[in-house]
Amino acid sequence: MPKILVIHGPNLGLLGVREKAIYGETTLEEINGALTERAKKLKVELEIMQSNHEGEIVDAIGDTKGRFDVILINPAAYTHTSVAIRDAISGAGVPAIEVHLTNIYAREEFRHTSLVAPVAVGQISGFGKLSYILGLEAAVSLTKKK
Amino acid sequence: MPKILVIHGPNLGLLGVREKAIYGETTLEEINGALTERAKKLKVELEIMQSNHEGEIVDAIGDTKGRFDVILINPAAYTHTSVAIRDAISGAGVPAIEVHLTNIYAREEFRHTSLVAPVAVGQISGFGKLSYILGLEAAVSLTKKK
Amino acid sequence: MPKILVIHGPNLGLLGVREKAIYGETTLEEINGALTERAKKLKVELEIMQSNHEGEIVDAIGDTKGRFDVILINPAAYTHTSVAIRDAISGAGVPAIEVHLTNIYAREEFRHTSLVAPVAVGQISGFGKLSYILGLEAAVSLTKKK
Amino acid sequence: MPKILVIHGPNLGLLGVREKAIYGETTLEEINGALTERAKKLKVELEIMQSNHEGEIVDAIGDTKGRFDVILINPAAYTHTSVAIRDAISGAGVPAIEVHLTNIYAREEFRHTSLVAPVAVGQISGFGKLSYILGLEAAVSLTKKK
Amino acid sequence: MPKILVIHGPNLGLLGVREKAIYGETTLEEINGALTERAKKLKVELEIMQSNHEGEIVDAIGDTKGRFDVILINPAAYTHTSVAIRDAISGAGVPAIEVHLTNIYAREEFRHTSLVAPVAVGQISGFGKLSYILGLEAAVSLTKKK
Amino acid sequence: MPKILVIHGPNLGLLGVREKAIYGETTLEEINGALTERAKKLKVELEIMQSNHEGEIVDAIGDTKGRFDVILINPAAYTHTSVAIRDAISGAGVPAIEVHLTNIYAREEFRHTSLVAPVAVGQISGFGKLSYILGLEAAVSLTKKK
Amino acid sequence: MPKILVIHGPNLGLLGVREKAIYGETTLEEINGALTERAKKLKVELEIMQSNHEGEIVDAIGDTKGRFDVILINPAAYTHTSVAIRDAISGAGVPAIEVHLTNIYAREEFRHTSLVAPVAVGQISGFGKLSYILGLEAAVSLTKKK
Amino acid sequence: MPKILVIHGPNLGLLGVREKAIYGETTLEEINGALTERAKKLKVELEIMQSNHEGEIVDAIGDTKGRFDVILINPAAYTHTSVAIRDAISGAGVPAIEVHLTNIYAREEFRHTSLVAPVAVGQISGFGKLSYILGLEAAVSLTKKK
Amino acid sequence: MPKILVIHGPNLGLLGVREKAIYGETTLEEINGALTERAKKLKVELEIMQSNHEGEIVDAIGDTKGRFDVILINPAAYTHTSVAIRDAISGAGVPAIEVHLTNIYAREEFRHTSLVAPVAVGQISGFGKLSYILGLEAAVSLTKKK
Amino acid sequence: MPKILVIHGPNLGLLGVREKAIYGETTLEEINGALTERAKKLKVELEIMQSNHEGEIVDAIGDTKGRFDVILINPAAYTHTSVAIRDAISGAGVPAIEVHLTNIYAREEFRHTSLVAPVAVGQISGFGKLSYILGLEAAVSLTKKK
Amino acid sequence: MPKILVIHGPNLGLLGVREKAIYGETTLEEINGALTERAKKLKVELEIMQSNHEGEIVDAIGDTKGRFDVILINPAAYTHTSVAIRDAISGAGVPAIEVHLTNIYAREEFRHTSLVAPVAVGQISGFGKLSYILGLEAAVSLTKKK
Amino acid sequence: MPKILVIHGPNLGLLGVREKAIYGETTLEEINGALTERAKKLKVELEIMQSNHEGEIVDAIGDTKGRFDVILINPAAYTHTSVAIRDAISGAGVPAIEVHLTNIYAREEFRHTSLVAPVAVGQISGFGKLSYILGLEAAVSLTKKK
Repeated sequence: MPKILVIHGPNLGLLGVREKAIYGETTLEEINGALTERAKKLKVELEIMQSNHEGEIVDAIGDTKGRFDVILINPAAYTHTSVAIRDAISGAGVPAIEVHLTNIYAREEFRHTSLVAPVAVGQISGFGKLSYILGLEAAVSLTKKK
Repeated sequence: MPKILVIHGPNLGLLGVREKAIYGETTLEEINGALTERAKKLKVELEIMQSNHEGEIVDAIGDTKGRFDVILINPAAYTHTSVAIRDAISGAGVPAIEVHLTNIYAREEFRHTSLVAPVAVGQISGFGKLSYILGLEAAVSLTKKK
Repeated sequence: MPKILVIHGPNLGLLGVREKAIYGETTLEEINGALTERAKKLKVELEIMQSNHEGEIVDAIGDTKGRFDVILINPAAYTHTSVAIRDAISGAGVPAIEVHLTNIYAREEFRHTSLVAPVAVGQISGFGKLSYILGLEAAVSLTKKK
Repeated sequence: MPKILVIHGPNLGLLGVREKAIYGETTLEEINGALTERAKKLKVELEIMQSNHEGEIVDAIGDTKGRFDVILINPAAYTHTSVAIRDAISGAGVPAIEVHLTNIYAREEFRHTSLVAPVAVGQISGFGKLSYILGLEAAVSLTKKK
Repeated sequence: MPKILVIHGPNLGLLGVREKAIYGETTLEEINGALTERAKKLKVELEIMQSNHEGEIVDAIGDTKGRFDVILINPAAYTHTSVAIRDAISGAGVPAIEVHLTNIYAREEFRHTSLVAPVAVGQISGFGKLSYILGLEAAVSLTKKK
Repeated sequence: MPKILVIHGPNLGLLGVREKAIYGETTLEEINGALTERAKKLKVELEIMQSNHEGEIVDAIGDTKGRFDVILINPAAYTHTSVAIRDAISGAGVPAIEVHLTNIYAREEFRHTSLVAPVAVGQISGFGKLSYILGLEAAVSLTKKK
Repeated sequence: MPKILVIHGPNLGLLGVREKAIYGETTLEEINGALTERAKKLKVELEIMQSNHEGEIVDAIGDTKGRFDVILINPAAYTHTSVAIRDAISGAGVPAIEVHLTNIYAREEFRHTSLVAPVAVGQISGFGKLSYILGLEAAVSLTKKK
Repeated sequence: MPKILVIHGPNLGLLGVREKAIYGETTLEEINGALTERAKKLKVELEIMQSNHEGEIVDAIGDTKGRFDVILINPAAYTHTSVAIRDAISGAGVPAIEVHLTNIYAREEFRHTSLVAPVAVGQISGFGKLSYILGLEAAVSLTKKK
Repeated sequence: MPKILVIHGPNLGLLGVREKAIYGETTLEEINGALTERAKKLKVELEIMQSNHEGEIVDAIGDTKGRFDVILINPAAYTHTSVAIRDAISGAGVPAIEVHLTNIYAREEFRHTSLVAPVAVGQISGFGKLSYILGLEAAVSLTKKK
Repeated sequence: MPKILVIHGPNLGLLGVREKAIYGETTLEEINGALTERAKKLKVELEIMQSNHEGEIVDAIGDTKGRFDVILINPAAYTHTSVAIRDAISGAGVPAIEVHLTNIYAREEFRHTSLVAPVAVGQISGFGKLSYILGLEAAVSLTKKK
Repeated sequence: MPKILVIHGPNLGLLGVREKAIYGETTLEEINGALTERAKKLKVELEIMQSNHEGEIVDAIGDTKGRFDVILINPAAYTHTSVAIRDAISGAGVPAIEVHLTNIYAREEFRHTSLVAPVAVGQISGFGKLSYILGLEAAVSLTKKK
Repeated sequence: MPKILVIHGPNLGLLGVREKAIYGETTLEEINGALTERAKKLKVELEIMQSNHEGEIVDAIGDTKGRFDVILINPAAYTHTSVAIRDAISGAGVPAIEVHLTNIYAREEFRHTSLVAPVAVGQISGFGKLSYILGLEAAVSLTKKK
């Protein structure tokens, strides 16, 4: 059974609590619940983590080889500043899919550049919780290609 | 029954023929076939067009109001240069979803900027034919929110 | 009797329908009506066209020589991207006046640059329908200088 | 009877004397004469000033509230460098119309940016003396909207 | 008894009258009143001026040597454009403290750069009237270091 | 017998009529005549088209596969803005040679960048009508390499 | 009694030891002592932390809601690179005040931009230990506004 | 007898007093003395002014026509920010020579650009008091060419 | 006996496993073995650490004073993004030598800038494992200068 | 009989030896042979030189007046860095044609700008040896215009 | 008797012959004659050289120490491109004065930056032959300061 | 026995004489002596040259093929301006190692970019004489890999 690592980046632990005008009322628990439910239907195993620490995310990605088939990551604020996460992904040997709750291209200028995108398989942004669900389907599709 | 307009931008008529190293061997017909099949299951109606003319695409978008519920568009080369298509979308009163076959952020510098993205609901790029299928699901999800 | 070609650029056919918060409720018909009425008083003949096609606008400008005395143009989205329209105007041998409904310098950054302005006689922006009327008066004034 | 303040910026006192190749042979007196005559027909009252001092122009604008209905300003060289005049206008509570004798977009690069334009109602440039007359008509039109 | 020169830059005479949404309802008189009161408690002497003229501000700063111990300045619009005020401060031989009512880093791009800041002792921005009071305390603290 | 498609871009239909100071007095007909004559000597077949429409040029290039051996193109104004023509050429599977009547590097700044050049075999600019003749020779030389 | 969280960013633990020419001889302990003393007088409660870890600072800010009334932060090096801290602050629902020991606008170019400033209430820089004291006063003033 | 107007820009009244490390110990009086003495030998008449006000300098230049043969100007801080002084010079019909006490190209980046230089006859910088003397010789040489 | 701290930055724990085409087949253990061996010969003591966490690296550098004579650091991805590590080094009072396995100037644009280099003694890049050995020799040479 | 100077810039002496993947297997001797042969047919006289020294090339161009009718130059690396060669050509009074073996616009960014192009009659790039032959024909065509 | 080295940069050997519209009709011999004559009056010894070779100019400057008191240099085209000449001057231990015949700030953009200026004592530009004479006077003045 | 060419770029002949504050007191002879001594121990043959002429350095590199195994080069000022040396190295077929006496990344902005680095094997900067010795060791290591 394919195994997928879901990584939630910094500040996402406060979803549904902070800045609802931008991020909506869905909590991280609800997203994780929806992902878990869909994963069952698609017959894949999920492991989910959230961290505010760039280093912990790099650790986790560096540890995926042989243990996971795809990485599903919302790097949040680190999207725009972390060469370390980029290098971790390009070195991991495990394909990664980048997702964003909001349409990052419709927000501030500095959010328009993703350091992660060039080394990801693809990117999905702007659909709220659905971004994760679509990303999960894309991830499962990747495991079938192998 | 919700109705969705699928727009394929310039040069996409040659998919599967041109630059296979980048775009793969899938033809536009195969993509359209897969979209149609999935649309049936999701119980939505599709109308599909392809054009190399910026003006025709602008006409078509300008004509969606009251006739379509969502636009699913791959603006191709016009992604990076067309203020006219951007204005057409922002003026259409119909939500649009932007899709790309390739990961535009892993290609040439000038493909990293999308003039369309800031006025789209969201963007999906890099999954080949699957980009369209995921986009269709996002589109259907939008029609349900109404 | 002097003859003036009025060109409405892309998406202007939807005036009064699209984005009323920005462009107001005046329709293109109302603008054309006001222009025609004023033209009668000023004793000039008008020909009015609207097109979403960059190429059609280039054709029309290329065809003005010997047939029109002034061009009154709102290039809309093409203002910012069309070298072709710029070249058409500078090659036409017929003076052109550029008008905009909105104050383009108070909007998004990319609307601050006009490729057309350097080859126009002058520019009027920000007065809604009145921009066209003032532009028509300036056009008539030009025909008298000849 | 509506009252309009006309402000001529730096170096405009030498119109018709300096650089005739660029600015033409019309003097500032002739412009003021034409404005006054047209104002009579349009039944508005004018007050006209010219100053080479940024501070005097800021003073004058700061003093318009309750005394004038519209400001008609040619900021000349200060167009491109004065945040103070911009702030004065946006703080005045009196609408301002920006005019230029020449087509500033067809001249040196540094004249293409107007700090004033984003806070003005609209801009008219390139028609010589007529720029002022058209600006006056636009100003009168604004007073009628109130 | 230490002596401090307070300089209010262009357009600040209209505080509490203009653009209340940005600058609040406090008038310049209230700020000056609060400063004077606090100065008494801190046992320093104040001299307060406001000018819309860059040259007058340069004159005043050039005249501080031997007469004042610290300059407390809100250069307002000249913050972003005046090399002359910068040179006056760096040549004055009297330390200067820069204050702003609003958080200039949360406003338009062109307000993010201060030509004055590199030659000031420090900068306080964003606290409304309190910016001045805190600046006064910092000024008094400087006089004690001597 | 090798077959070559000659494409004249926007506004070139007015050669010899418009802006003679820049483009000279040669008409497009004269260029086509000279090309046809030389083609006979070199024993190649020519097809010649001119269009102001970006879309038509994209169509034409998309249609060359299997029908033409080389494309000889003067993209004119589209040289600097058309990603669509660039993609059409790189996807055509038919080598293209870019020609310009004038030395585009000695003209306005914005004409110094060609989006087409990186995907063309080579570029010839600045020799007037002769640019086309030299381009034709280069084209014939390419057909011999196959 | 209002409660304020004081956050010292990376490398500040070595104050008074490292680079005294730039940062002076005051140690972090002395600053904390002065803050504590002043807090007693102002009748507010302080909690003070120092961390070299971006993630720990994000954790701490994310945890302020309902526990603190104001954040007083010197983000030090992270001022210029951390979108994560910016997002944490704008999401915290607790106002933040940014302080710096040195005048960051008089130092290297890359220190002139603060990613934190646009989401802070205000900024105080350049007064050494006093920057913190003034920041504390501003913080207390904010708690009174509520 | 030829007549030359010498203009000293902002802050130069404090020469020999302020920032001696940069500007040396020579006072403005000494410079004026040296200029006057040399003028006598060269048999030209001098008029000398100093102002911190941009507007006064513009006034003075605007008033030179028919009264002076050459302008010798050290625009100081206004060198880098004043389009108004530039326009005044290019409109004056009187040749201007630009001088600087210091080598402006060896100082801060923002002092490397002179808005005045493109409309001056020439520029002399870096020789302290001697810059003025050499400028005076160049001015006299210009009067002889007429 | 001099003591040297060797710091391996993020993702280097996977050397010899990840991206061999870029980084070669040497593992981190082999590098550490070679360094240890050479250190013995050169009679210096080594302490070696690897971390993916920016904060841990800042902690370690902040702790070197009085305990180490030189720092030998490969900041990897943090080379290009960490002002915190830069500040830690410039504040440490212990000289640092920067090494890179690959020639960072022959890779992606964003890897051409090192925030660390300006505060390091020197930099060695492009020699694989040998970069570290040469860096160790330079470090030992520095300890002898003291 | 017209006389043409052919200049081969730096490193071209190693053609056919160095970097065959980029420059092909043709040697400089073969190019010179082909040029000489074609020159005979076209009845022009050639002089050919190669130099790695910018100064020698400037010397040679400075010496062409009255001795040569056209310069045919491949400035190679100096294309992108030599203002001296540019000035030599624009001062020579002899028309110059610029040729390149490779398509410089399809290579590294810094090769896209030619300092020579704006002062050359025209430019031919991307056709290998044929670039020189086409350039020679263009040169001969120029001699006939005289 | 003080000794001054005069260096004329590339292409200056053709003065009075080439591009008279820009550089005038004065030949290099006339300039050298005028310099020699003035040197006699000022009682200094001159040595004059002209070279098109960057390396020769570097050689000459490197050789000035102990042999010359001042360098008077017109670096011509190398002004804008030569770090080597800049380094030679800053390393020479002999003060250098930079002169230009034309006003380089009124010419093409790329001539506005001088790499030499920041290491020269001062710069004189725009006075034709007189630039050299004034430069010589400045040079003699420098020898007197020693 | 492997053979290595050592190239010292412009102005290095004056080492130990010029600008000792930046470059130290070591002379070029001492560096050459140390290199020769070390070369003997490492059993490699050295050839050493110094030149101020870009062309001579290009000549020398072009001549290395078959005669040398490695190039050890300090391009000095040409590091930042010479595309010709870059092309010579990439075309030489002989690996090159770039060394610098100073840490070029801690100096002026324009010294931070090396045109040579992307085509060198690696770079060593900032260790004074030791930079050359380490470079020699790296060179010898390269000869062993063959």
